[in-house]
Amino acid sequence: MVPMNLLKNGESADYVNTGTWSTKAIQEAQLLGKPIKVVASSEDRNFCYIPENIRFNQDAVYAHVTSNNTIKGTQWQAYPDTKGVPLVADMSSDFMSRPFDGKSFGLIYAGAQKNVGPAGVCVVIIRDDMLGRASGNIPTMLKYTTHSSKNSMYNTPPCFGIYTIQLVMKWLEETVGGLEAMDTVNRKKAACLYNIIDNSGFYKGTADKSSRSMMNVTFRLPTEDLEKQFVQEALSSGMGGLKGHRSVGGCRASIYNAASIESVDALADFMKAFEQKNG
Amino acid sequence: MVPMNLLKNGESADYVNTGTWSTKAIQEAQLLGKPIKVVASSEDRNFCYIPENIRFNQDAVYAHVTSNNTIKGTQWQAYPDTKGVPLVADMSSDFMSRPFDGKSFGLIYAGAQKNVGPAGVCVVIIRDDMLGRASGNIPTMLKYTTHSSKNSMYNTPPCFGIYTIQLVMKWLEETVGGLEAMDTVNRKKAACLYNIIDNSGFYKGTADKSSRSMMNVTFRLPTEDLEKQFVQEALSSGMGGLKGHRSVGGCRASIYNAASIESVDALADFMKAFEQKNG
Repeated sequence: MVPMNLLKNGESADYVNTGTWSTKAIQEAQLLGKPIKVVASSEDRNFCYIPENIRFNQDAVYAHVTSNNTIKGTQWQAYPDTKGVPLVADMSSDFMSRPFDGKSFGLIYAGAQKNVGPAGVCVVIIRDDMLGRASGNIPTMLKYTTHSSKNSMYNTPPCFGIYTIQLVMKWLEETVGGLEAMDTVNRKKAACLYNIIDNSGFYKGTADKSSRSMMNVTFRLPTEDLEKQFVQEALSSGMGGLKGHRSVGGCRASIYNAASIESVDALADFMKAFEQKNG
Repeated sequence: MVPMNLLKNGESADYVNTGTWSTKAIQEAQLLGKPIKVVASSEDRNFCYIPENIRFNQDAVYAHVTSNNTIKGTQWQAYPDTKGVPLVADMSSDFMSRPFDGKSFGLIYAGAQKNVGPAGVCVVIIRDDMLGRASGNIPTMLKYTTHSSKNSMYNTPPCFGIYTIQLVMKWLEETVGGLEAMDTVNRKKAACLYNIIDNSGFYKGTADKSSRSMMNVTFRLPTEDLEKQFVQEALSSGMGGLKGHRSVGGCRASIYNAASIESVDALADFMKAFEQKNG
């Protein structure tokens, strides 16, 4: 929907390729015949880092980034300086996990299913001047202006999902104490696992230290057999989902907002014990 | 998605216009620049009937109908004979309320939120030969082949909604006794209300008798003031949602699968009492 709504004929946008989701966003824009430019990519090292010192084209309508890369385990630590080009961010996997400065963004979109609610809802925040860009011949359901002008109720909205998001936001605000507090908890959880990885000759992180994700901690063990054993034994101890995405292999701990410090501590203890036994 | 996926350049399809939803389907096809043909319409009498004896173009790729019209209170009693042109039906508001013969359909689509589950899921049934028609430059998420080849899990699906649909289908099969039994119940419910309307000089049905909907019983009272009073008093008696759609006014009883015979009987009693008091 982003290139379809924001790019008029002849206009271009910049994209940064940091992994699977960025690649798909680029492909979809190209499918629409939009002349977008990939201004930076970390594909040369299997997307294990976030590119730095990117020069954005000053005539770009927007600059697209994927804020967190669930599969490669990287995350923008700070959003890039685009010299005024509005950022468009796919925040699907870290929206509401840390504070962000809304002023640099022309548009933010985020599937709900990581940190805010059940699958089947997408949150979109769009700046007024970006809203005005959509041209006439876009299907009505795919125009941002349709949803904006109808208060997100042009069609029957997914009420249950939206209601659940309200409950999660209430929890985030009242129980956790807001985004700053959530960020502190998330940093603590990630540090706990990265510390084990950094102080071990057994586990090896797959992402560059400067680009590490607070949401998805990706790591390898010395052999694939040990990785299999690790995932299985963890599962027997009540910790599921530690297998890396099928497209990259290895192991991955996804520690979204809903993962408690206690659960991450339990994983840390398990990792230490597993290393001691098999290292 | 239908014209986008099914119509190649230069190809056309037939549409029957029976109200608000058909009109929107026609508008969306035209927005895409597809040369579709409206072969029949009941707009001449404010969509109070389903057209008969329609001649479909034999070179049409498909013939589009809206099976039930929630706002106008009409419903196809039997699907039209298209002489072999595959039917494409929007069954959003009566899917799983009565049996249908799948053989005449090239594609069926239905939003879940009336008879099968919560809002936010759309059921699509598509015939293999229709699947093969989608051309290359459609956005991936909007191609039927994407969802078909990935077993409806190209993206993270709305799991909660799908799970709920499973529970509703189990109820439909095991508790109600299947589609035939559901149909019997639904006909009984509708007959109960239409009988009151037909035997009254007070209530007046808005749809032609031969085209009446089993899902949405639409009717008028002698004056708009009485309609307001009717809706208010019904609400005080625990019966909500009886106001007609804001685009047509009047009154409407939506008696989807979930409405029990008892609840419809209660409404019937209320209607009789209201007529006696105010007629």
